[in-house]
Amino acid sequence: MTSSLGARLARQGRAIGTFSRRRLLGAAGAGAALAGVGVVAGCADSPAGSPAPGEAIVPFRGEHQAGIVTPAQDRLHFVALDLTTTDKAQVIALLQKWTAAAERMTAGAEAAPGGAVNRNPETPPTDTGEALGLPAASLTLTFGVGAGFFDKLGLTAQKPAALADLPRFTGDQIDPASSRGDLCIQACSDDPQVAVHAVRNLVRMGFGTTEVRWSQLGFGRTSSTSTAQATPRNLFGFKDGTNNLKAEDDAALRDQLWVQAGDGPAWHDGGSYLVARRIRMHIEIWDRTSLVEQETVFGRTKGEGAPIGRTAEFDVADFSATGADGKPAIDENAHIRLASARSLGGVQILRRGYNFVDGSDGQGHLNAGLFFIAYMRDPQKQFVPMQRALANNDTLMEYIEHTSSAVFAIPAGLGEGRYWGQSLLEA
Amino acid sequence: MTSSLGARLARQGRAIGTFSRRRLLGAAGAGAALAGVGVVAGCADSPAGSPAPGEAIVPFRGEHQAGIVTPAQDRLHFVALDLTTTDKAQVIALLQKWTAAAERMTAGAEAAPGGAVNRNPETPPTDTGEALGLPAASLTLTFGVGAGFFDKLGLTAQKPAALADLPRFTGDQIDPASSRGDLCIQACSDDPQVAVHAVRNLVRMGFGTTEVRWSQLGFGRTSSTSTAQATPRNLFGFKDGTNNLKAEDDAALRDQLWVQAGDGPAWHDGGSYLVARRIRMHIEIWDRTSLVEQETVFGRTKGEGAPIGRTAEFDVADFSATGADGKPAIDENAHIRLASARSLGGVQILRRGYNFVDGSDGQGHLNAGLFFIAYMRDPQKQFVPMQRALANNDTLMEYIEHTSSAVFAIPAGLGEGRYWGQSLLEA
Repeated sequence: MTSSLGARLARQGRAIGTFSRRRLLGAAGAGAALAGVGVVAGCADSPAGSPAPGEAIVPFRGEHQAGIVTPAQDRLHFVALDLTTTDKAQVIALLQKWTAAAERMTAGAEAAPGGAVNRNPETPPTDTGEALGLPAASLTLTFGVGAGFFDKLGLTAQKPAALADLPRFTGDQIDPASSRGDLCIQACSDDPQVAVHAVRNLVRMGFGTTEVRWSQLGFGRTSSTSTAQATPRNLFGFKDGTNNLKAEDDAALRDQLWVQAGDGPAWHDGGSYLVARRIRMHIEIWDRTSLVEQETVFGRTKGEGAPIGRTAEFDVADFSATGADGKPAIDENAHIRLASARSLGGVQILRRGYNFVDGSDGQGHLNAGLFFIAYMRDPQKQFVPMQRALANNDTLMEYIEHTSSAVFAIPAGLGEGRYWGQSLLEA
Repeated sequence: MTSSLGARLARQGRAIGTFSRRRLLGAAGAGAALAGVGVVAGCADSPAGSPAPGEAIVPFRGEHQAGIVTPAQDRLHFVALDLTTTDKAQVIALLQKWTAAAERMTAGAEAAPGGAVNRNPETPPTDTGEALGLPAASLTLTFGVGAGFFDKLGLTAQKPAALADLPRFTGDQIDPASSRGDLCIQACSDDPQVAVHAVRNLVRMGFGTTEVRWSQLGFGRTSSTSTAQATPRNLFGFKDGTNNLKAEDDAALRDQLWVQAGDGPAWHDGGSYLVARRIRMHIEIWDRTSLVEQETVFGRTKGEGAPIGRTAEFDVADFSATGADGKPAIDENAHIRLASARSLGGVQILRRGYNFVDGSDGQGHLNAGLFFIAYMRDPQKQFVPMQRALANNDTLMEYIEHTSSAVFAIPAGLGEGRYWGQSLLEA
């Protein structure tokens, strides 16, 4: 793999701020230039600098996969796939092909050499073409495996205990057709067309080995994963996840985010877990409640996002303060109290969710909500107790409904020449 | 209405490039500042200048509605609603409320005075809050009425003949649940959260008078409506609509886009018609065809987008040229030949469609395609013959399927103090 050219191209792209499929084609001729896009230098999970929006390239390889502590991009296309084969060699061949394509696309190149227009015109193009001319737009592609991956490929001895199915929580209305999956790919970008293009080309390559189980688009990030980012608003109009794990919290990341040696099977060291939950928000009901009720439910002010009783968003919540009426200033069942590390014995997660609107529900309402994505070191010890506390007590549950659920093991990042899942498949 | 303050705020916003709900709140206190957001100066349909992306404000009032020849923004939320009442006075009250809210939101303000946080906290906020802090992002809100609007309100004498249902075309697989509608609102913006916020707040205000019939998100524009814009790519990877009507073609706009005096009932003079068709693209089948086949189907090259036999995108297609084999260089059934004004007796339309991905289809495929939106002077004389020619002969039909259909009458733009639909309701 001609990694030096790839790295040079990627660095050039970042430096001159104009790295795009079109410029690349124009600059050097597609065949020569694209064949060289291979490896980019640097650590995949370091927060990006500040190149022109849309032009940034997030390094694909590194200690951890990109797309986790990478500053959350604004658009998401998430896809869960099922294996349609039990042939391990066939799956390995696909994962190698996927890895090469993912590395190319995150660098702003086409999915495969040849691309949309420069191969034998009597054959189908190797890239579908809808991202021609678009820059990398901070694209990250994050890969994970579900329980079915181990079962179908005879890898059950390598299946981490923490990958067990999540229990049913109070109020769950889970649709099996949009839950679980043998594999997942999270595509995040500042340009939705770039994210969709990446997923579509990977799905295409999987034909005969994988098929789409479910997929979800998200149009607006709901979390900050870096202290450099402002906290965005969910569709209830609130800043949520102010106290999210951040890329800068090294100690907390080790403790709460990254799988450590000894946690489970060795192939997963340095990895993480992804929990995905599609949360339908009953926005029409919410919109009919008073501001006081809304702020009581979250435990924050709606405007500034400050904990009730404090003035600024990042002020520390005082859970022991009482109001003039002698009752807790922050309600006993307020979302920020129940979800806080202090209430959960120190448990934290890294949220990376997105707002969605999936048309309407056939009953006169918009089908809207939050596609919750969170990364953590152990879902059984972190997500399960947190969600149990929320499902049983959080007043917010009156206004939301969890309609899908999935958990995936996320392998560590890739070193030079390695492919997605290699540590597991060669364990 | 304190139009001068509104205009000043809007102009200021454009001039300083930082007009946002948050700045507005900070600058002058929400109550005072927002109450004044009323009218912005200028013509609603003139192509915008070049303020910082996301900060631009498109004037709401003018000779024609904004969102038609306005340079196509990148994101769409389109909603069709049905009336749940036959009470004309109630509908007028809603349209007045909608107009005030639409004007505010397109100027970057909240949906109503008071907004998300500054009204009596014991009552529900007048704005849902998820766009707090976000700029106007070139938001346009374009309003239309369907046939049911006339029928339910006893206005059949004012119903234009051109608003008749579209015929069934060859291959149509129309889902009635996501077709038609008594009203429509097209929200376009450079920020999807801004578009979604606008639709959601208008839908909310409609409760008791309207209900959502269907809605559609689009993530990437597929058309240029100004010569200043590059032609984007659809999900087949092609530039389509190169010869779209453009804002700069004054004579063609009069001839093909705007309803002229004498065309139909006088209330509609200066208006237009909107045809919406959800076109599912069978991307997996398309992706298996050769580049030659793909280019033959469109009649353009995939890379540059030039007509076959020419070299640049905007070169005029030579439909009479023959290749070395003596056959037409541009196939007899090529999309650009069949859809060209030359083949259709001079007919043109203004396309303003968006790419979409609505998750997966339950059969292992992405549910993706083009949400076709087009504006024209008379759908019966323009869209019907064009679509008939395409449906019967276009090779592209092998790869696509029309799954929804709607046509709306779009009233002309609003003068000072006027409300959406006033010319019809007071006709």
